Amino acid sequence: MEGLKAIVLICDGMADRPVSQLGGRTPLEAANKVNMNTLAQQGECGVMDPIAPGIRAGSDTSHLAILGYDPFKAYTGRGPFEAAGIGMDVRKGDVAFRCNFSTVDSDMIIRDRRAGRIETGTDQLAAAVNGMQIEDVTCYFKESVAHRGALVLRGPGLGAEVTDADPHEVGLGILESRAIDPSDTASAKTARIINQFILKSYELLKDSPVNKAREAEGKMPANIILPRGAGVAPHVESFEEKYSMKGAAVVETGLIAGIAVYLGMDVIEVPGANGGLDSDIMAMGQAIIKALDDHQFVLCNIKGGDIAGHDGDAEAKVKFIERIDQVVGMLMDNVGKDTYIALTADHATPVSIKDHSGDTVPIAFWGPDVRVDSVQAYDERSVVGGGHLRIRGTDIMNILTQLMNTQHKFGA
Amino acid sequence: MEGLKAIVLICDGMADRPVSQLGGRTPLEAANKVNMNTLAQQGECGVMDPIAPGIRAGSDTSHLAILGYDPFKAYTGRGPFEAAGIGMDVRKGDVAFRCNFSTVDSDMIIRDRRAGRIETGTDQLAAAVNGMQIEDVTCYFKESVAHRGALVLRGPGLGAEVTDADPHEVGLGILESRAIDPSDTASAKTARIINQFILKSYELLKDSPVNKAREAEGKMPANIILPRGAGVAPHVESFEEKYSMKGAAVVETGLIAGIAVYLGMDVIEVPGANGGLDSDIMAMGQAIIKALDDHQFVLCNIKGGDIAGHDGDAEAKVKFIERIDQVVGMLMDNVGKDTYIALTADHATPVSIKDHSGDTVPIAFWGPDVRVDSVQAYDERSVVGGGHLRIRGTDIMNILTQLMNTQHKFGA
Repeated sequence: MEGLKAIVLICDGMADRPVSQLGGRTPLEAANKVNMNTLAQQGECGVMDPIAPGIRAGSDTSHLAILGYDPFKAYTGRGPFEAAGIGMDVRKGDVAFRCNFSTVDSDMIIRDRRAGRIETGTDQLAAAVNGMQIEDVTCYFKESVAHRGALVLRGPGLGAEVTDADPHEVGLGILESRAIDPSDTASAKTARIINQFILKSYELLKDSPVNKAREAEGKMPANIILPRGAGVAPHVESFEEKYSMKGAAVVETGLIAGIAVYLGMDVIEVPGANGGLDSDIMAMGQAIIKALDDHQFVLCNIKGGDIAGHDGDAEAKVKFIERIDQVVGMLMDNVGKDTYIALTADHATPVSIKDHSGDTVPIAFWGPDVRVDSVQAYDERSVVGGGHLRIRGTDIMNILTQLMNTQHKFGA
Repeated sequence: MEGLKAIVLICDGMADRPVSQLGGRTPLEAANKVNMNTLAQQGECGVMDPIAPGIRAGSDTSHLAILGYDPFKAYTGRGPFEAAGIGMDVRKGDVAFRCNFSTVDSDMIIRDRRAGRIETGTDQLAAAVNGMQIEDVTCYFKESVAHRGALVLRGPGLGAEVTDADPHEVGLGILESRAIDPSDTASAKTARIINQFILKSYELLKDSPVNKAREAEGKMPANIILPRGAGVAPHVESFEEKYSMKGAAVVETGLIAGIAVYLGMDVIEVPGANGGLDSDIMAMGQAIIKALDDHQFVLCNIKGGDIAGHDGDAEAKVKFIERIDQVVGMLMDNVGKDTYIALTADHATPVSIKDHSGDTVPIAFWGPDVRVDSVQAYDERSVVGGGHLRIRGTDIMNILTQLMNTQHKFGA
């Protein structure tokens, strides 16, 4: 590839708050992370609000922001990105849902929200419902991993502001989806379609050979499909249209892969990258290096820190950060002098709250000609004195593309 | 003048990145600039994004922002400001262009984009085309310096999203201007008018006495006018309406003068201020002092640092900054105790890239009662610890007018 290149390395949920069992340090402050510190010392640092100060970001909204897409415009729900992530054709204006295959009894009472964690046969079940026509809407359905799938509604005048039909609890009946605002006729239409889709899925699935075989084996039948997480597919420029460069994604979760696919980026599969604490993240680093051969930009999301945060496991988080540090060192040793690295997190996942918080995250820009500042360590508090002070997720691509000298000048 | 006063001194393109031949310092860091440092020590500092973090600003968009006008609303192209800058009447909704007198052969192939850099007679050529009527649109044309001029189209329903007719290369034919979006009928109308204007300019100019004389002398005839840089003239409040004070501009380039004229500011001519590295910038400083007699606000743009940046000449940039420093010292010595100085740049023009970048620029506010901070030197990195942290160009007038106590309170 000609020209300067960039890697954005997003350590999912890595940022944290002071942890008493770590002596009041954050996991990042407690970790032995010499490579990240070197990157910070040689780079220009700052604190970042993934969305805006205090806003608790999801990984999806944060990644959209970091890629330069206003999440308040581009994001209405997970559905469209989940569907794109499993290879479905999602078009502007479609309304998409994440779905579970579930088990209900004949009174429509939930017996298992995950249909006994069904592993096989969902492709046949999906084929039975895919392409269903309800009113003037076509319902595309595709299975994903285990009991999961996605539904795409395509037709005129659909909205996404609907309540879930899934009661999210065993022993309760299926709910009727409704428009959140009764005067929102587009969402009312979607709710009507969804309610029919759910009932028809039961009619089509309850006697299928897959389910007959499961019942014979004493397993829960996957006899109904429950959609949730409705979102209208946004019209967004592709990454390549927006930045005039090819982008690749080395990521572990379907959600982030879905965003990358939706933006037309090349998603690179890495064997052993499983999204867990034992993921082969060094292989991900090597995949980044390889992707730079034919992409000017590589997004990487490493998931483990977020897992440890959700588990409330400070020790595991420290250890995983130390594993990421080895990847950072390998990247710094192996990228050319033409490559920028932006090292950050998509949000904090403090072990004390076991969920995403709205705290700032550290960011460092490393590469040719950056205004090196006085920051000596890469962690939440050490970057406060950095040259970038406080930026937002949506600033990152502007900062990188101006460094890469690929950004058009605004004015003369 | 009663009341507190303010000077905004914009050192065009002065900010930079670390330069290896300067020992990793920026030109501003390397320069001997005791007066700027004193101003920073006695002032309140910060870093500034002229537009927003990472955005590569033009001088025009940046000056609009610094004067408090949102460039995303007020700026669609250079044309209106160029036209205003040469004294043309430009009204809201007009579409204006920068133009070149050029030379074409009878097959409409470009022979010289600058018509042999014609110096005289363009006023007669301009008179021949000025006032041309095409459909319901009047075409006002005025010559500027050398081969340059400006065109203002006035009529109903004009757009500015058109492609250039100028192929920007000798030996190529004139292009047909088109609307960038074919469904944009307003821009399609402008393109239609422009295509006719260009052909008619050739008919009117090719046999003019000025060109006959040039051809007799073996010079390129200025036989066609090629417009570019279309922009819709925005409706903006004048500077005086917006701030209830008289503003003057002491500037060197037509582009910035055009913005000042468009905003109704008084543009003060300074003999010897030529926009180059040898410009008499001390005379500009003296003009600022004089302008404060009857203006509460003076904008000054000193161009040379940007020239050195575009030339990639770090040494010249350092020397020019040291010349500006003398002007800063003179201003500090000669303004009254009632005067604020905001010292900044409109963008960085790093010598390493020879063009504008999206890096931050330093800013310092000096004058009565400011919250003096700990910053000891005026340069890109020393101001990072300043009291203003990170602000945007559009914040400057709000900060100044609150210091000047001329700003209305928002609320009770």
